[in-house]
Amino acid sequence: MSLHTDALRDHACLIVHGPDQPGLVAAVTALITRHRANIVSLDQYSDNPEGGAFFQRVVFHRTDLAAAVDEIEDDLARTLEPYGMQWRLTDQSVPKRMAILSSTSDHCLLELLWRHRRGELNVSIPMVVSNHTVSAEDVRSFGIPFFHVPSSGADKSVAEAEILKLLTGNVDFVVLARYMQILSDDFLEKLGVPVINIHHSFLPAFVGAGPYKKAKERGVKLIGATSHYVTKDLDEGPIIEQDVTRVDHSMTASDLQSRGAYVERAVLSRAVQWHAEDRVIRHGNHTIVF
Amino acid sequence: MSLHTDALRDHACLIVHGPDQPGLVAAVTALITRHRANIVSLDQYSDNPEGGAFFQRVVFHRTDLAAAVDEIEDDLARTLEPYGMQWRLTDQSVPKRMAILSSTSDHCLLELLWRHRRGELNVSIPMVVSNHTVSAEDVRSFGIPFFHVPSSGADKSVAEAEILKLLTGNVDFVVLARYMQILSDDFLEKLGVPVINIHHSFLPAFVGAGPYKKAKERGVKLIGATSHYVTKDLDEGPIIEQDVTRVDHSMTASDLQSRGAYVERAVLSRAVQWHAEDRVIRHGNHTIVF
Amino acid sequence: MSLHTDALRDHACLIVHGPDQPGLVAAVTALITRHRANIVSLDQYSDNPEGGAFFQRVVFHRTDLAAAVDEIEDDLARTLEPYGMQWRLTDQSVPKRMAILSSTSDHCLLELLWRHRRGELNVSIPMVVSNHTVSAEDVRSFGIPFFHVPSSGADKSVAEAEILKLLTGNVDFVVLARYMQILSDDFLEKLGVPVINIHHSFLPAFVGAGPYKKAKERGVKLIGATSHYVTKDLDEGPIIEQDVTRVDHSMTASDLQSRGAYVERAVLSRAVQWHAEDRVIRHGNHTIVF
Amino acid sequence: MSLHTDALRDHACLIVHGPDQPGLVAAVTALITRHRANIVSLDQYSDNPEGGAFFQRVVFHRTDLAAAVDEIEDDLARTLEPYGMQWRLTDQSVPKRMAILSSTSDHCLLELLWRHRRGELNVSIPMVVSNHTVSAEDVRSFGIPFFHVPSSGADKSVAEAEILKLLTGNVDFVVLARYMQILSDDFLEKLGVPVINIHHSFLPAFVGAGPYKKAKERGVKLIGATSHYVTKDLDEGPIIEQDVTRVDHSMTASDLQSRGAYVERAVLSRAVQWHAEDRVIRHGNHTIVF
Repeated sequence: MSLHTDALRDHACLIVHGPDQPGLVAAVTALITRHRANIVSLDQYSDNPEGGAFFQRVVFHRTDLAAAVDEIEDDLARTLEPYGMQWRLTDQSVPKRMAILSSTSDHCLLELLWRHRRGELNVSIPMVVSNHTVSAEDVRSFGIPFFHVPSSGADKSVAEAEILKLLTGNVDFVVLARYMQILSDDFLEKLGVPVINIHHSFLPAFVGAGPYKKAKERGVKLIGATSHYVTKDLDEGPIIEQDVTRVDHSMTASDLQSRGAYVERAVLSRAVQWHAEDRVIRHGNHTIVF
Repeated sequence: MSLHTDALRDHACLIVHGPDQPGLVAAVTALITRHRANIVSLDQYSDNPEGGAFFQRVVFHRTDLAAAVDEIEDDLARTLEPYGMQWRLTDQSVPKRMAILSSTSDHCLLELLWRHRRGELNVSIPMVVSNHTVSAEDVRSFGIPFFHVPSSGADKSVAEAEILKLLTGNVDFVVLARYMQILSDDFLEKLGVPVINIHHSFLPAFVGAGPYKKAKERGVKLIGATSHYVTKDLDEGPIIEQDVTRVDHSMTASDLQSRGAYVERAVLSRAVQWHAEDRVIRHGNHTIVF
Repeated sequence: MSLHTDALRDHACLIVHGPDQPGLVAAVTALITRHRANIVSLDQYSDNPEGGAFFQRVVFHRTDLAAAVDEIEDDLARTLEPYGMQWRLTDQSVPKRMAILSSTSDHCLLELLWRHRRGELNVSIPMVVSNHTVSAEDVRSFGIPFFHVPSSGADKSVAEAEILKLLTGNVDFVVLARYMQILSDDFLEKLGVPVINIHHSFLPAFVGAGPYKKAKERGVKLIGATSHYVTKDLDEGPIIEQDVTRVDHSMTASDLQSRGAYVERAVLSRAVQWHAEDRVIRHGNHTIVF
Repeated sequence: MSLHTDALRDHACLIVHGPDQPGLVAAVTALITRHRANIVSLDQYSDNPEGGAFFQRVVFHRTDLAAAVDEIEDDLARTLEPYGMQWRLTDQSVPKRMAILSSTSDHCLLELLWRHRRGELNVSIPMVVSNHTVSAEDVRSFGIPFFHVPSSGADKSVAEAEILKLLTGNVDFVVLARYMQILSDDFLEKLGVPVINIHHSFLPAFVGAGPYKKAKERGVKLIGATSHYVTKDLDEGPIIEQDVTRVDHSMTASDLQSRGAYVERAVLSRAVQWHAEDRVIRHGNHTIVF
């Protein structure tokens, strides 16, 4: 699950999913072979070999990929149509464009910017949008544009409209890096690209606000973080990744918050990386992570 | 946190708790010194140095402990009375008597019997009581009495009365090792000793029946187990220990159950060991684990 | 990575490995399709897409597998010969025959017997051989034959000859469940089946005898266990699985031993399960675990 | 194990160690009480109750601590002298001065600077010294002085002399945040303050250069990091903290390096925090971590 940016030239990622049926894998691999491409990795999963749903991720290398892509796509359409499968093909050497929305907490934001600078996230970051200005200087020191869109007042529609204007057409997915505003259904629908959130608890425990305080009150011995796709239902979207860390009776809610920040950073980073590498397939309210 | 059975002779464990106040630690340690005892370990915790609650666990060694115990207890009563502290003194060389209640799943039951046979649990096990007979032979092969108390029918009071009769006076605490019957408030009250349960989820996630099925439905990436003291509120008692293990999309609810069994075994064993060694202090709905 | 014994009827596992080259995956999947089999899972790995080694594991379902196996094997030989690939095909519904060698420590031995009884290990256990008699009764209570082969004296050849006589032709692989005798190269060669060992340290740290004592002396903060294939070089064989657990300054070497036993049980069980399910491929001194 | 900077006013930390003997704890706690101080936390450990070594850490609160410190220290000297104990008293509200030495890898360096800025490390950072200039701008953006001391050539004595001149008198301890130069015994001796290193393996496995490459070659299933005090013997000093992360056959040595960087960051941060809070006591080649 690593990234070799320089090694991604002429690599494509094919995602196929739909009803499981005999011959599918052979059809896909034969197609790749007849386009003189070499399979680099192949993962597949069927949630039920008898009439279930089938999911496949194939990364292949094809010299002069750009010149061959149209032909491959035509062939995919022809080949997979009789099977009723959905598919998408992406050029691995083209990083996805990721916007980050943040508020005052900067630990998740800085972790993403820093991993990006190290070349560990296969994304470009066209902008960071925040309802506070506190991180402006930090963000710009990474050479990344920062836009301030205040969200004061009960009516969020003005702020949302402004954010939409910034994002539309410019991004392939959005990350909420401890962004403390709830986005309206209308906003999500108009945005039309995946939104990844980090929730500071081990979902489904401690849904909603103040999870560290709730964790302290319940007296749990582990705290966690969850990264999931945002849907209309708060904290109910498909989970991409989760992790936990051990705590004890001597720690205050504020201690839990400090300790938990490091789990949030790691969990969100992994979720973003996997999404960027087309490793995550949504299926109902679940994810398949290859 | 280990046990040296042979090394427990003449060792006592003192638990002190109550309102935090200056001089307490000095008063307790001076008391131990003037009875010519040597402090082997000392843990303490205050949930708020200003007017909070104070908890202390001291293990000390006193040659010929049995002869000195009455005198030490008199001194403790005199010394701690002005501070308004509660305390209890236990002879570490006397193992607590632990009954196990089980149903058909035997993984937690056998883990406890094995660890006991290996000399790793400082308890005696006077009996196993089950509403099924499937484990009878296994239990008796460890040299431990097995009693079958069926729990068929809506009226549990007959079965509970029979279990009470077996337990009363014979046990210091009870472990529910995947015992699939809910015990009535009346039973718990009459029993009058601590009851430790293992719940097969990471509480407070997936309270109640079928947690592995619920975990599969929610699509979590980790599953867990929780050991807690039983109170009148199902799955709401003070948590002693929790742990988790990683799962993925390819695992069925039945796979989660198999995988989770190993977490349940480990979590329950640690909780039982800590209780047996007087390491756990209940405080409201929390536990302090030293 | 789970086992559904009842679901293994008519399932075969195909392992293919050799020099990586274009078209291989398509050739294999087409072959499976033309024998009217359905691919249940497929894993592959290439250690270098340009001229490296290629490894593949395919599980497929074919109604009436037994009747088709000869034909499939002929086809495999024909198809893979020009590629210069090695392959093996196993019927998943036929459990491998696993012998266990043990000494006085029984924690790994009992864990394997118990997981086997729960139906979690896809193996049969024709015998346990030990150089001590202490576990005889336990083993036989699981319905499994126990043979005592003492190993006293400097000359191990008599004992080894006796063990060889017991094992030869009767087992598909052998597990050393804390067997405290070093097996000669001659024995391993004559035995001719894989041997899996559990070493009670995180290799390559603390090779050889007394790893818990060495760990205490070095003051490490984690201890571990390693399961590996046995080769002529002690503790140097290909690693299948490893894990660790946290320890602290207060624990004695004997505490480390108790704590570590639970890691040994888990690590060995996973290694055995993966080997039994043909998930482990040896490659030089490495393993590929699918 | 958390830090409340604002809550550290008038808090002192007392470390006592020496030969274990009855009455010690009572003597220390009585002393604290008679200076009208309140014990906030107390940890102790004896490596052998009969004639072993005793270690104690007490944090206490004393209103107007500064005014009382001389008197408390006099009393400590008088009280502990007959016991032959060593002790040191530190004002918790005075952060230790920590210098960081780094080379080209910046992940450990930046992690420490971030945590410091978040108020999670109770230290001041008077300077970062590096044999490369690549991190200069980053370091200075945190408001921290950066000094470049090149280390080219075989004779390191000139560079070491320059570093010594920068550090002497200005720092309480030094952290090697992936500093790729070996410090001479002479340098360590003249420096005279503790030096903490992070080694990118799970010691004692993979001592010396290139541990990730060695890990790949051995085929381990977990990689780790170790933070330890620097002594004259490379990678042999007392271990403060270690941790590991899971890897698999598909990862290259370069992948291990990327993945391991996150373990290094976490392990070094914990070691530094514990050292800064006087939680670590060296004893021979071991550490006691309270």
